[in-house]
Amino acid sequence: MKIISRELERFEKFLFSSTKTTVPFIGNVSRYVMEAGGKRIRPALVILSSKICGYSGKRAIAYAAVIELIHTATLLHDDVLDNAKLRRGRPSVNHLWGNEPCVLIGDFFYSKAVEIMGKDGDKELIRIVSRATTEVAKGEILEILKTGDLTVDEREYFEIIGSKTAALFSAACEIGAVLANKERKTREALKKFGENIGLAFQLTDDALDYISTDRSLGKKVGTDLKEKKVTLPLIKALKAASLQEKRMVEEIFEKKRVTSQDFYKVKDFIERKGGFKYTYEVAKRFIEEGKDLLVSISPSPHKNTLLKLSDDILTRKS
Amino acid sequence: MKIISRELERFEKFLFSSTKTTVPFIGNVSRYVMEAGGKRIRPALVILSSKICGYSGKRAIAYAAVIELIHTATLLHDDVLDNAKLRRGRPSVNHLWGNEPCVLIGDFFYSKAVEIMGKDGDKELIRIVSRATTEVAKGEILEILKTGDLTVDEREYFEIIGSKTAALFSAACEIGAVLANKERKTREALKKFGENIGLAFQLTDDALDYISTDRSLGKKVGTDLKEKKVTLPLIKALKAASLQEKRMVEEIFEKKRVTSQDFYKVKDFIERKGGFKYTYEVAKRFIEEGKDLLVSISPSPHKNTLLKLSDDILTRKS
Repeated sequence: MKIISRELERFEKFLFSSTKTTVPFIGNVSRYVMEAGGKRIRPALVILSSKICGYSGKRAIAYAAVIELIHTATLLHDDVLDNAKLRRGRPSVNHLWGNEPCVLIGDFFYSKAVEIMGKDGDKELIRIVSRATTEVAKGEILEILKTGDLTVDEREYFEIIGSKTAALFSAACEIGAVLANKERKTREALKKFGENIGLAFQLTDDALDYISTDRSLGKKVGTDLKEKKVTLPLIKALKAASLQEKRMVEEIFEKKRVTSQDFYKVKDFIERKGGFKYTYEVAKRFIEEGKDLLVSISPSPHKNTLLKLSDDILTRKS
Repeated sequence: MKIISRELERFEKFLFSSTKTTVPFIGNVSRYVMEAGGKRIRPALVILSSKICGYSGKRAIAYAAVIELIHTATLLHDDVLDNAKLRRGRPSVNHLWGNEPCVLIGDFFYSKAVEIMGKDGDKELIRIVSRATTEVAKGEILEILKTGDLTVDEREYFEIIGSKTAALFSAACEIGAVLANKERKTREALKKFGENIGLAFQLTDDALDYISTDRSLGKKVGTDLKEKKVTLPLIKALKAASLQEKRMVEEIFEKKRVTSQDFYKVKDFIERKGGFKYTYEVAKRFIEEGKDLLVSISPSPHKNTLLKLSDDILTRKS
């Protein structure tokens, strides 16, 4: 993403300065979380979407920070829920400092995001971002409700990931069009584009949770199974499973503690049933559909970068 | 608060309708949390402050809901931290449903509050509310950092409660003046008034945590000592303590589990040293100072109610 490297640099600066506080501890934890970096895919989406719509002002940097702050807040809150020990390749905040700071620094980031939006003062953008945030919370609640439930079907799975992941991707891209003052049609196209690549992102995430390694993923592989989250690879495999195979999975889901042997058994089962292949096929379809939505936007180097970023979701290792 | 009973009714309706969702579980928990009611002191402050400044439109209802949603969100997040079992006289959400929904429904409420503000679209109000929310998170983080630290002094104590409690009270009152389009002087007066009664509210809260009963308080008495939170009654008592008394408190603070015998020992010690009396004196001073700040606002039945609400903080049992 060389083409927006200057904007991403400004974004980093903005992000760090916006979380400045008089409490050294908050500053330290914020820096720890922010320096871990992550992929910065959401801020890149805000910047690229605004660029391809012809906007090149400063507000894209501010909104890139808004989206990343909210994303980081949800990660921090998610870490509490998951009791995750690794996040972005390093010990998670809740593992180092406990659950309390994890929740509160998440709240702190979210408030900061709202402060930035308030300063900017755009009603429409506040509406877009706050709705997306409500969706994320809703999706994560739905996910918890469905934890351990092997009857979850594709429709329910897509309802969950549509809210918990795709809503923020979608908002990031729609913001770009709104900043550029684009007409409704372009806005809708970018919104839908963002949703599509958000879904693809979560699909590959759920596949990588089985097929990647801790080191390349930057977080623990096998977490979904350990937490009894039923994701598309498993849903697909179960659909084609024999009674005996179903029973095998059920037995593992009834266990309090999933062993690494259990993990390989389930991974193997999904592989045999084509669950990973199918998941990647669906992800590819979303990416293709997403890219098609941008057909009416004139070609440009920034557009090429956005299309490349979309394709890279399919081959990402982390 | 008969004089604003119609507004409070509208507020309740607004609150319930604003947390409507397609996920029945969220609806159920929301209703559970909201029906517990609480004192609704913050929404009353928004409404009364706007009234005494001459505003009587609908936006006060919306902002009353914003403030109460944020307050409820912080309670839900606080319950996670505290592992509280009773809240507003009933089992807490995290006790009934676990930590996960507690954090996420808190996030859901906060997003809803931002949605309401976005719809209203007032930059200045968004700034006021988001800054207050940042302050609350900051104050709660500070409080955690100072947990178990018997060297906490008055200055640090007031820094904590100024952020964690008074900031939202202050915002609630300032909102009233902003809605009425009042000049800077009145805004500042109401802001400071809110801060004062917020401080008084927390001071009496910290005294009641020792001297009330579970039943009348609607939450567990003795929680602060159990969690090793050092509040003003104890700070004051320690200042006048003999070496032996200090040692007694230190020993209790070093214990993993505080017994009910320990609690009565510390309560007795604070009582003997005049810690509760002092805390109420300070609270009374804040209330008086606060009321004085409203002197330039013309007398009215609504103003009387606001002054009465301030006084009632000193005699409240829950």
